[in-house]
Amino acid sequence: MIDQRKLPSKEVYVRCRTAKDVARAIRTMVIRGAPAIGVAAAMGVALDVRRSRATEFYRTCDLLAATRPTAVNLFWAIERMKRVFAGGALIDAEAVRLHDEDVANCRAIGRHGAGVVPAEARVLTHCNAGALATGRYGSALGVIRAAVEAGKRVAVYADETRPFLQGARLTAWELVRDGIDTTVITDGMAGSLMRAGMVDVVVVGADRIAANGDVANKIGTYTVAVLAREHGVPFYVAAPLSTIDLSTPDGSGIPIEERDAKEMTYMGASQLVPEGAAVWNPAFDVTPASFVAGIITERGICRPPFAESLKHVCDGNQ
Amino acid sequence: MIDQRKLPSKEVYVRCRTAKDVARAIRTMVIRGAPAIGVAAAMGVALDVRRSRATEFYRTCDLLAATRPTAVNLFWAIERMKRVFAGGALIDAEAVRLHDEDVANCRAIGRHGAGVVPAEARVLTHCNAGALATGRYGSALGVIRAAVEAGKRVAVYADETRPFLQGARLTAWELVRDGIDTTVITDGMAGSLMRAGMVDVVVVGADRIAANGDVANKIGTYTVAVLAREHGVPFYVAAPLSTIDLSTPDGSGIPIEERDAKEMTYMGASQLVPEGAAVWNPAFDVTPASFVAGIITERGICRPPFAESLKHVCDGNQ
Repeated sequence: MIDQRKLPSKEVYVRCRTAKDVARAIRTMVIRGAPAIGVAAAMGVALDVRRSRATEFYRTCDLLAATRPTAVNLFWAIERMKRVFAGGALIDAEAVRLHDEDVANCRAIGRHGAGVVPAEARVLTHCNAGALATGRYGSALGVIRAAVEAGKRVAVYADETRPFLQGARLTAWELVRDGIDTTVITDGMAGSLMRAGMVDVVVVGADRIAANGDVANKIGTYTVAVLAREHGVPFYVAAPLSTIDLSTPDGSGIPIEERDAKEMTYMGASQLVPEGAAVWNPAFDVTPASFVAGIITERGICRPPFAESLKHVCDGNQ
Repeated sequence: MIDQRKLPSKEVYVRCRTAKDVARAIRTMVIRGAPAIGVAAAMGVALDVRRSRATEFYRTCDLLAATRPTAVNLFWAIERMKRVFAGGALIDAEAVRLHDEDVANCRAIGRHGAGVVPAEARVLTHCNAGALATGRYGSALGVIRAAVEAGKRVAVYADETRPFLQGARLTAWELVRDGIDTTVITDGMAGSLMRAGMVDVVVVGADRIAANGDVANKIGTYTVAVLAREHGVPFYVAAPLSTIDLSTPDGSGIPIEERDAKEMTYMGASQLVPEGAAVWNPAFDVTPASFVAGIITERGICRPPFAESLKHVCDGNQ
């Protein structure tokens, strides 16, 4: 997998030979993005099953499940591998199938979501919900790509997304390679940009969507949602069904990972925060369903009330 | 003057011997913060007047006025020096007086503003409106310091304030030295923090306040103001009268400086944005008066309607 920590300055690939390698890659953010974490976990399970069947299987699942708490796709992928394992089916083939399905889901999300992007649009996105965060193509960036493929003129504003800078480093890198007009802004600029009338629609990804439509996504997403409502800009979430967690009633039940202070206090060798100051570093926040215009899935766009529309779209899944 | 670009990792002082040195220091952000820029410009004028009277005086004023467009204190200080020069008074003494007055004004702002801080308070601030941004003591941080001196229990949340990181690097550095409880957050976290009920009041500085109460301040301030209103948190601006520009009717007339893209695309040697992506880097934004609970000056707190209260407080100045 590509080492996302090194982008955009270096394109370095990390080879994972064991589930332990994959777990480390997820924990240290070599790979991130909810769907991509799910795919990687499935592949990790498959890697270890090759060498030691049964005895080690559940320990491997636990190892991978312990890497990061918020993205539900991780647990979804592991549960799926457990079911396949219990059923005696081929684990390797299932991991590949899960990856292929994720790519197909992103394409379908793009097809359904392209309609929310006007023919000439300035789209704001936060963090990276692109090819790097999924099997390929992306969820939020899948919507943007599909709109571009449909002949729409799209300019993208990418929040840089501190502290990990997924917007500046990853979203801009992906979109520039695709020849899509991309402008990076700092997270604090989003308000000023919207007040100037320069954003037509917001599309972001998600790490976990509760049954009522509350959305956990990268820290800063809620701030964008508040700004979007203040300025009458529709706020959409693009995510595969594997991101929807009907067993969690609302956002208050979603565990929010807090990450190491060093992600905020240093950038390379540069010290950004003095000794003696505390740091708060939650990796995600929760945007209440009331701020969300629609949740774009591979089965179509769920609209409020989400308790019904999410249940309906997930039931169709069974 | 202390080189604010090097904080918090290095405490390096820059010696300015000419107005040209001071102009460069302002332009390159060795020194920043509206009141501090005003004081520095006055000192710069005084430095050059020592060596070449009359002939060079107005050229020196133009040189300093061309450094940065948004903070009105710069032009205010230069106009004041021009008046003194025309009147034949001592330029050196006037520069020192202007500095001393700024410090006294910050103390008075603190006294008036301490009342808006509850006895046990979590105060959010953006950028740096502290000792580093003024003659000493600070405007927004002056309010916090005065509240602490009055025996209140104050914890400060400092937005890191990308791209220049004045909150992480400067505000935290100042407050930690004063033993004030300080937690740095990324700019995107402010929404989540307020939704969690962890902010009681917001206090920020200003670079220029229009006659109607619209406030130009560091980029990201408007985003904080929108979040504060959404969560019922009072939003205060602390600034000396020299920041109020009655000749500009509203925020649309305030020139907003755009700075070099490199401030956003690199951090030391680390490349944060790939080649090919555009960057938008306005240094300030405008918060409409309707978001502002009060403007704390050395003469007291102006309340809405600001068109009246600002005129009243400035008239008292003449």
